[in-house]
Amino acid sequence: MTDNNIDTATPITLLGLGAMGTALARTWLATGTPLTVWNRTPHRAQALAGEGATVAATAAEAVAAGRLVVVCLLDDESVGEALDGIDLSGKDLVNLTTGTPAQARARADWARARGARFLDGGIMAVPPMIGVPDSGAYVFYSGSEELFTEHREVLAVPAGTTFVGADPGFAALHDVALLSAMTGMFAGVAHAFALIRREEIAPTGFASLLADWLGAMAGSVHLAAEQLESGDYTKGVVSNLAMQVAGNETLLRTAEEQRVSPVLLTPYMALMARRLAAGRGDEDTTGVIDLLAVG
Amino acid sequence: MTDNNIDTATPITLLGLGAMGTALARTWLATGTPLTVWNRTPHRAQALAGEGATVAATAAEAVAAGRLVVVCLLDDESVGEALDGIDLSGKDLVNLTTGTPAQARARADWARARGARFLDGGIMAVPPMIGVPDSGAYVFYSGSEELFTEHREVLAVPAGTTFVGADPGFAALHDVALLSAMTGMFAGVAHAFALIRREEIAPTGFASLLADWLGAMAGSVHLAAEQLESGDYTKGVVSNLAMQVAGNETLLRTAEEQRVSPVLLTPYMALMARRLAAGRGDEDTTGVIDLLAVG
Repeated sequence: MTDNNIDTATPITLLGLGAMGTALARTWLATGTPLTVWNRTPHRAQALAGEGATVAATAAEAVAAGRLVVVCLLDDESVGEALDGIDLSGKDLVNLTTGTPAQARARADWARARGARFLDGGIMAVPPMIGVPDSGAYVFYSGSEELFTEHREVLAVPAGTTFVGADPGFAALHDVALLSAMTGMFAGVAHAFALIRREEIAPTGFASLLADWLGAMAGSVHLAAEQLESGDYTKGVVSNLAMQVAGNETLLRTAEEQRVSPVLLTPYMALMARRLAAGRGDEDTTGVIDLLAVG
Repeated sequence: MTDNNIDTATPITLLGLGAMGTALARTWLATGTPLTVWNRTPHRAQALAGEGATVAATAAEAVAAGRLVVVCLLDDESVGEALDGIDLSGKDLVNLTTGTPAQARARADWARARGARFLDGGIMAVPPMIGVPDSGAYVFYSGSEELFTEHREVLAVPAGTTFVGADPGFAALHDVALLSAMTGMFAGVAHAFALIRREEIAPTGFASLLADWLGAMAGSVHLAAEQLESGDYTKGVVSNLAMQVAGNETLLRTAEEQRVSPVLLTPYMALMARRLAAGRGDEDTTGVIDLLAVG
């Protein structure tokens, strides 16, 4: 703790020392940020004490130690439990706990009612990427822009920062939307690997082709976005819905030949077919998005 | 037709002048390749006559015009119909017609029985990308490597070339596998756009975040490939299956909050849950691939 930064750096209180919380703590400690930590089970905090962290015996003691309070717990319920009954007036609460947009909005109201400014964050990284330059790790933030601006520098130590709006639910919404898109991509990737599995094709060689292809095709989201904004789903269309639905037959027949269940592809194909049946064959597949709306 | 290349360039016969066939024809004509074309409905061929193509009255006449015969028709059945009863002995048949691996294998046997060498191709591009430098367009080829090597230069005019094996089914298999993975990615993208749809979030701004994220996450297929090759699905795992299944809850709750049907994500999540229930929580999600095998 002899680092020269100590006198000037914003002290941080961090609640929650799971894999992500611990990774965050280490990057702050490495830059000499005064850090007070608390964890429900104390042994994780003890490991950080040797690295310069002040270990608080209770969450209340940790919160009392400073103005900037970062929370990275299991879920939103844990946040309510950990902070229950604790004085938050004048605090800047940054919630990095994974949750839904509605949970973030409710937690923001809850924090404001207790006199705290509130910023929600959605971490787009796994713990090993935290604090690693050029890892691509970043955090979506939304809520109090004043809080974000004031603490941006110290928040940027573990990962990049992207402020996405005053609505405290937007960070979680962006986080979940990107993870959902990734889930779809991984489903497609699983199907692709299953297709080549019974053949003399090396998965690692195939993976290079696959990564390049998906990377290139990811760029097509820009056109979909323009179509959504204009409301004209025929705008810039290259391979229209009618052609793509026809092409799906080859994908399904190939799955059958290779003895692969089509279950990961069929829901999307069914929506494409439904949109085609509604007379939208000249559009792009963007119309499928309309069909996902419920209620 | 005064181009100096004519005397030395390999003459090509091209059967099929849909959007893709026409795009191929134009790139060959632009480089002075002697080109004989045929299409079932003649008007598409007439347009190319003005650009230097020789128009054959019948498929037989077109095939008789040269040794290298490129076929780009609607489907495999159309290939059989167009070439029915035509002498193929000594021909080099390059089939760029979309089809399944089994269709390509059967067509290869059929061609060889008629005395032709056979190369199948799967075009990883839409017509506007053909002949455009740096468009990223390329064609998977498989089958006769001798044919491929001999004609590689002229085949490389419209798009890049990637030879993936002597098995004539491998080009179609690679093609379909990549398109299947893309279908999954597009399903995920549709879900992501649906999530932000009811909010004050500009689709175009969101698209930039989405494209960057998917591009970065596409790289994770390399780890999956290594896990498949080693058979050890815990290898290099960062966020294990148990953690990811827990995380799916947040994705599903958010879909519900945003009134988006989860139908595009649930089949993959169900397979993840099934694998977890089988005691594989410490693995990566790669085990889902095993569950897709049928029979």
